[in-house]
Amino acid sequence: MKIIIIGATGTIGKHVVKALEPGNEIIKAGSKSGDLQVNISDNGSIKNLFEKVGSFDALISTTGDAHFGPLREMSDANFRAGLNSKLMGQINLVLIGQHYINPKGSFTLTSGSLGEDPVVFGASVSAINGALDAFVKAAAIELENGVRINAVSPDVVEESPDYFPYFPGHIPVSMNRVAQAYVKSVLGAQTGQTYKVL
Amino acid sequence: MKIIIIGATGTIGKHVVKALEPGNEIIKAGSKSGDLQVNISDNGSIKNLFEKVGSFDALISTTGDAHFGPLREMSDANFRAGLNSKLMGQINLVLIGQHYINPKGSFTLTSGSLGEDPVVFGASVSAINGALDAFVKAAAIELENGVRINAVSPDVVEESPDYFPYFPGHIPVSMNRVAQAYVKSVLGAQTGQTYKVL
Ligand SMILES: NC(=O)c1ccc[n+]([C@@H]2O[C@H](COP(=O)([O-])OP(=O)(O)OC[C@H]3O[C@@H](n4cnc5c(N)ncnc54)[C@H](OP(=O)(O)O)[C@@H]3O)[C@@H](O)[C@H]2O)c1
Ligand SMILES: NC(=O)c1ccc[n+]([C@@H]2O[C@H](COP(=O)([O-])OP(=O)(O)OC[C@H]3O[C@@H](n4cnc5c(N)ncnc54)[C@H](OP(=O)(O)O)[C@@H]3O)[C@@H](O)[C@H]2O)c1
Repeated sequence: MKIIIIGATGTIGKHVVKALEPGNEIIKAGSKSGDLQVNISDNGSIKNLFEKVGSFDALISTTGDAHFGPLREMSDANFRAGLNSKLMGQINLVLIGQHYINPKGSFTLTSGSLGEDPVVFGASVSAINGALDAFVKAAAIELENGVRINAVSPDVVEESPDYFPYFPGHIPVSMNRVAQAYVKSVLGAQTGQTYKVL
Repeated sequence: MKIIIIGATGTIGKHVVKALEPGNEIIKAGSKSGDLQVNISDNGSIKNLFEKVGSFDALISTTGDAHFGPLREMSDANFRAGLNSKLMGQINLVLIGQHYINPKGSFTLTSGSLGEDPVVFGASVSAINGALDAFVKAAAIELENGVRINAVSPDVVEESPDYFPYFPGHIPVSMNRVAQAYVKSVLGAQTGQTYKVL
């Protein structure tokens, strides 16, 4: 299988690469790192990536930033930073990628547990995660030629200790469990699902 | 209670006005209609509304547009039309309004059942509704001075027959049940909830 992983060098992405590397052709992408460069906030850059890669069987996105800060001080611009990166970056990978992906291919996006289980300072991240979970459910009923789409929604992961103070009482999830959720999405047959890793 | 209703002249809004009019001071707002004009896609216009109204006890939003069309042809621009109107329009009412609302006041936004129960052509509406439901859940844990926030998420309503062909098998919900969900949000005491009207 030819699998594009956007965010392949990240905390989560590098474990997804490791889990899927045996037996598959992995194309690693990042804005600076990886085999190919792409900026998910730039549609021209996304199109360029697909033109270079040609057809593929699976796209995994383990990337996207969003603003984390107090609601009291949150501005429209703060909120839109995440809409431009984590939300529309990932959605544009699908809107554009649907015209390049092989029949029976799959898209796997990354949301996060804040969509359902909010923490203080996370209102804009929560909104974006909720949007992504709803998007995959809806897009699944329209994608053609057997193409599937799912999201992986992890709680804070064990290799992101900087986030722990903002997640009181959350038990950080293991990188192996997170990586296997992406494996389930790509090698399984379900669509329209959000795989929670809690 | 002093209640601002944005979208007061709309299909849903006019029933919310009727349900809350007895015993309350209602300020009706729309982009062209109502007592005061506001464009929810323009932050200056939102600030201007709050400056004119002064402090208030409840804000209800029954407004916001989003693109409805095939995923296959959906563009970034189509998607962003809804982010600028239904999503950020309503969220900016809260981000800005939190600095004007009275203690123990409430915000009530409108999402919709497509967030959880998608139909063909609805992927961008679904994403926006999912974002709004997640946002109210998250914002509720940060709003100060006892201020509350909820969303109302109706299925297609009985007075929108133009939408029926796109909602096969959906039983349109009565305007009375929809209006009462807003009453429950404003006069009740819950926060962080999405009231589904199905
Ligand atoms: N870490 C957690 O605990 C956690 C929990 C739940 C959800 N998540 C979500 O999981 C996703 C990945 O998180 P992470 O912690 O693994 O992030 P990370 O360690 O910061 O890695 C981000 C990856 O994305 C790439 N990247 C950054 N900007 C990009 C752009 N504009 N275009 C394309 N690629 C770009 C980076 O490579 P370059 O430097 O080369 O660009 C890197 O490979 C995020 O959406 C995050 O919200 C994370
Ligand atoms: N109808 C349904 O079946 C249904 C079901 C579920 C969810 N919803 C959601 O409920 C909300 C209201 O739907 P509706 O069918 O009642 O809509 P509608 O009949 O089109 O009414 C829209 C209202 O919003 C006002 N408005 C329009 N643009 C505005 C702007 N930029 N700034 C401020 N006000 C503006 C309009 O007044 P002016 O003309 O004066 O601007 C009008 O009062 C929408 O978010 C919709 O997605 C509707």
